[in-house]
Amino acid sequence: MTKKTDMMESIISLCKRRGFVFPGSEIYGGLAGTWDYGPLGVALKNNIKKTWWKRFVENRDDMFGMDAAILMNQNVWKASGHVGGFSDPLVECKKCKCRFRSDQLINKKECPDCGGELGAEKQFNMMFQTHVGAVQDETLISYLRPETAQGMFVNFKNILDSRHPRLPFGMAQIGKAFRNEIAPRDFLFRAREFEQMEIEYFVSPKEWEKTFEHFRDEMKLFMKDIGLNMGKVHELEIPDDERAHYSKRTIDFEFDFPFGRNELYGLAYRTDFDLKQHSEFSKVDLSYYDEETKERFLPHCIEPSFGLDRTVLAILTDAYTEDELGGEVRTYLKLAPSIAPYKVAVFPLLRNKPELVKKAEEIFKVIKKEIPATTFDDNGNIGKRYRRQDEIGTPYCVTVDFETIETGNGVTVRDRDSGKQERVEEKGLADYLKNRIS
Amino acid sequence: MTKKTDMMESIISLCKRRGFVFPGSEIYGGLAGTWDYGPLGVALKNNIKKTWWKRFVENRDDMFGMDAAILMNQNVWKASGHVGGFSDPLVECKKCKCRFRSDQLINKKECPDCGGELGAEKQFNMMFQTHVGAVQDETLISYLRPETAQGMFVNFKNILDSRHPRLPFGMAQIGKAFRNEIAPRDFLFRAREFEQMEIEYFVSPKEWEKTFEHFRDEMKLFMKDIGLNMGKVHELEIPDDERAHYSKRTIDFEFDFPFGRNELYGLAYRTDFDLKQHSEFSKVDLSYYDEETKERFLPHCIEPSFGLDRTVLAILTDAYTEDELGGEVRTYLKLAPSIAPYKVAVFPLLRNKPELVKKAEEIFKVIKKEIPATTFDDNGNIGKRYRRQDEIGTPYCVTVDFETIETGNGVTVRDRDSGKQERVEEKGLADYLKNRIS
Repeated sequence: MTKKTDMMESIISLCKRRGFVFPGSEIYGGLAGTWDYGPLGVALKNNIKKTWWKRFVENRDDMFGMDAAILMNQNVWKASGHVGGFSDPLVECKKCKCRFRSDQLINKKECPDCGGELGAEKQFNMMFQTHVGAVQDETLISYLRPETAQGMFVNFKNILDSRHPRLPFGMAQIGKAFRNEIAPRDFLFRAREFEQMEIEYFVSPKEWEKTFEHFRDEMKLFMKDIGLNMGKVHELEIPDDERAHYSKRTIDFEFDFPFGRNELYGLAYRTDFDLKQHSEFSKVDLSYYDEETKERFLPHCIEPSFGLDRTVLAILTDAYTEDELGGEVRTYLKLAPSIAPYKVAVFPLLRNKPELVKKAEEIFKVIKKEIPATTFDDNGNIGKRYRRQDEIGTPYCVTVDFETIETGNGVTVRDRDSGKQERVEEKGLADYLKNRIS
Repeated sequence: MTKKTDMMESIISLCKRRGFVFPGSEIYGGLAGTWDYGPLGVALKNNIKKTWWKRFVENRDDMFGMDAAILMNQNVWKASGHVGGFSDPLVECKKCKCRFRSDQLINKKECPDCGGELGAEKQFNMMFQTHVGAVQDETLISYLRPETAQGMFVNFKNILDSRHPRLPFGMAQIGKAFRNEIAPRDFLFRAREFEQMEIEYFVSPKEWEKTFEHFRDEMKLFMKDIGLNMGKVHELEIPDDERAHYSKRTIDFEFDFPFGRNELYGLAYRTDFDLKQHSEFSKVDLSYYDEETKERFLPHCIEPSFGLDRTVLAILTDAYTEDELGGEVRTYLKLAPSIAPYKVAVFPLLRNKPELVKKAEEIFKVIKKEIPATTFDDNGNIGKRYRRQDEIGTPYCVTVDFETIETGNGVTVRDRDSGKQERVEEKGLADYLKNRIS
């Protein structure tokens, strides 16, 4: 069995071997901090996104979906404080020129690589900078957004003017964000390019506590939706002196990753900081007029923020299981059926028996119609196929054998976690599987 | 009625007014060539994406979904030819310093803005450049990808090694791409940040023609899926001397936009150009071994490529309709129900009658359970609500009136396009609507 310290390596290896996640630009030696999602990774990620969008956008009447551009006017980041303050402390080794985040160094004087002397600490801005337009002019500097949040704040007035909502209401967005981390690490945990699912929910200042509690509950319900192990989730109340300057209350939801307990999601009460900043910097009035109380004010904001890649990582690390089955060591992913890339795999018992293959294909087509995330596999022997499906977390394997075609005695359905098989009638098989999955 | 020349302005205005698309970073004076999708735009875009993913990935057994990083190792773009050749001809006015794409100028000597003399033509690379990592070193230059395609080619071997497919098979991806256009124009048509849906489908060189025809048909079927007006779609066979250097055959699917006929989608036979280039530049063998013929070769590639924002634009411009209804001029979006942001809107006839509002809310909940894209509206009078739903393309409006509650005589269902209403029993209403929608 894999030791806990090697577990991350085993997971990264499984992800590459089976097609969940590949190192970015791998054939060119990679690009540190970037990852490419393969077929199974995309399916898993899409299932998580759908679940999130359904809970927080589709099923609500007070939430407005958005998809703002990644490239924004640089003044957005001046107002938000990112141009001035979104930086990490950087030190450079005078000898080998390697650079490090000084807050992550134990010995702040000597280079951990070559032992050379370290220079003075500088602030390194983590936003990726680029130029928009044909002129290499300062006025045309732009940044890859380091968070999706600001794309919502700057559209606050557009939502008011186009959808005419009354408070409380929120905006929700899923999208890429970029941070030029000095030291990307821990697989998907600290990447330079990543995806966020964020909500900015606007309330009257009197209502913030109630709303904060509402989303605290909703965030936990979402974690349950995707089958996250709640035993590994811990709420951390961020004390006054450690919170971001804009926040009056923050709870981090931390997760027990194999490399330690670390931040998964955040819930912050941002007051009216963002709307106030953008009002000031843009000179556009972002206030809200309450028809009932006849008051005009800047709404306050509650922000539930979810890292999508961290969600994938939390799920994969928690799902990764090694056990013994029938005297053999096996690896499997204990994924919730709702988010597993494939819900069902269909096999013929033997690949060289055309009558079995034909029947299996027939059954596959019927099931796929009802459960689109169904796969067919006739490679290698049945034992190998079970192992393969175990490794990608397919909860149910349907096998067509001689009994199926000779005595009409149905198929076998094997449960991923227990490895147990039961015979199920062919008629109603899709319904049977649908019930097991939901 | 709006003149054809003003139609784009009317559409852009509707998009902003109703919450489809807003100019990017608008409160800061914008950032040319960027657009933010609002609640209705996201819904429309997501419906298009889902339809595409379903047809080209979910419903097939030979297609592998991907989501590669936007930031890639710069050598990817050297191999693809983008570093050397992805440029537009640029001229600068000597007097006002404005810059233009010289191939778009009628008079190549005089500035169209100030009449000043234009300088010599230069090549301007359209990739956005940035630096990855803490050192501002040439080796760490990276680019925002100008197309999603290369993210698939560089993962070709990862798919072979992880999913073990046999030819023919394809990879499919939806994602953002970026081009630093000298002159972004025509709303979503030529933006600097946009989204693509691309397929790289690999075949034995002998099979390319058959596969090309297959995707030619599939692309048209997709256009029908999303309700594109096929009368405005035109296939354009690109002649030998106008094709990209890597292509042996290309068909553009052009669309009649209000500003003229222009490219919507492309279908190209790229030969083995890409895999050959990446094999050479990366020194990684990207060949495929055919178990049956015992041959090893570089597969050839057919590329169906879809602009997502252009799809949104084609659909919006085609759906935009002005007519007269009951003696009044009205504007409506004739969207296919399958992609309309909302399928159904539910109203009480009068907003100040609690019994009507209560009943309407009740019916709304029942329908929303079956048809999640259902909205409730009790703002303004019924006429205004119809106009509002017409403008956002909601195909069916359900109104609860006194007959509904007093005589149990059902509700009225109004058809967006004809404006005609019919009474439908409350029982089975959701099923009735589902049938009309599909």
